[in-house]
Amino acid sequence: MRMKEIPQATVARLSLYSRFLAQAQKNGITTVSSEEIARGVGVSAAMVRKDLSFVGTFGIRGVGYNVRELHRYLLKILGLTAPWPTIIVGAGKLGSALAAYDGFRERGFQIRAIFDIDPEKVGHKLNGIEIYSLDRLSEIIKATKASIAIICVPANRAQSVADDLVRAGIRGILNFAPSPLVVPPEVVLCHADLLMNLELLSFRLSLGRKAFQTNAC
Amino acid sequence: MRMKEIPQATVARLSLYSRFLAQAQKNGITTVSSEEIARGVGVSAAMVRKDLSFVGTFGIRGVGYNVRELHRYLLKILGLTAPWPTIIVGAGKLGSALAAYDGFRERGFQIRAIFDIDPEKVGHKLNGIEIYSLDRLSEIIKATKASIAIICVPANRAQSVADDLVRAGIRGILNFAPSPLVVPPEVVLCHADLLMNLELLSFRLSLGRKAFQTNAC
Repeated sequence: MRMKEIPQATVARLSLYSRFLAQAQKNGITTVSSEEIARGVGVSAAMVRKDLSFVGTFGIRGVGYNVRELHRYLLKILGLTAPWPTIIVGAGKLGSALAAYDGFRERGFQIRAIFDIDPEKVGHKLNGIEIYSLDRLSEIIKATKASIAIICVPANRAQSVADDLVRAGIRGILNFAPSPLVVPPEVVLCHADLLMNLELLSFRLSLGRKAFQTNAC
Repeated sequence: MRMKEIPQATVARLSLYSRFLAQAQKNGITTVSSEEIARGVGVSAAMVRKDLSFVGTFGIRGVGYNVRELHRYLLKILGLTAPWPTIIVGAGKLGSALAAYDGFRERGFQIRAIFDIDPEKVGHKLNGIEIYSLDRLSEIIKATKASIAIICVPANRAQSVADDLVRAGIRGILNFAPSPLVVPPEVVLCHADLLMNLELLSFRLSLGRKAFQTNAC
């Protein structure tokens, strides 16, 4: 199996399956069928089977999948077996909302520091996480061993922040600023586009439901 | 051309291209090449040409694309030629951040009302938009003719809110709550998954850059 052949949409669904399995495991469930996973995350059972066979996992007919094994396997594929020290740049409303979101920590994305240029915010804490001056970005990234950064600054500041992050050794950037960024090829860049989902909705709504096999996007 | 055959990833990129073209038009640029669009949004020129040929649009060799025409055409495909009255349910940090985001308005998603159960918030305004009690959801949806709703409530409240939205006639739901939702087939449902992008990042970071053609996800 060559991982690079996994389509991004499949990776996205593996993330959903693994979260469903985490919950099932918490609830003491030991085996699940593809139908149960499908119902839990809102896709078809055929898609669940196809996605899981993509990564070399097959359920046993009439028995299903072992919850604990499949969960561990998916976490491994998703790179979630060890924690990812993460920082947030920008302590505005969005940065604050993300700092308060406990779902990140549950999946191993440990928010270690928040940065802002506003001296009124520096020194305070959000959800127990300290806000530092942006001047200390490099120092704190090294001290926290952060490898992932989430950019929540205005569009016109995003590239300069990205440059600083790259210089400080950040390996992956999730960009919430509505602005394209340029980073060196060794840094992974992912855009969290708040408009995109609304435009996928408007596209589907304007064409009408008959144009699509499912009502989910 | 049958629209239903456009892959979702292409629709997502059409959204990026159209935003790039909007900016180009503002700057008085009349023609662009696929290379210029590609550079502006961070994909390859071949992908731009493929995506645009998908929707039946071809540039003129050596001249490129007419900015105004292509922009109008993409807006039409994306369902963005008329405004979409939109509401936000949940005036917490995330709901407030989204209400403050002017990018929605620029693309025609007019936030007409925000809803919350907290009596301390009801009656106040966020970015000029009134916060209403959740009790008035149906009434205000009808009054504002809202067709799209953005859910920003805690996971355990999301399904109940979705049920109320469907009963009130909402046609499209963008769900930010970390919870799968069930809606009738005639309602379009889109998940804005804040964890997903981080997990696409961790997947790529754990495999290393050699496993991928680009460093973008």
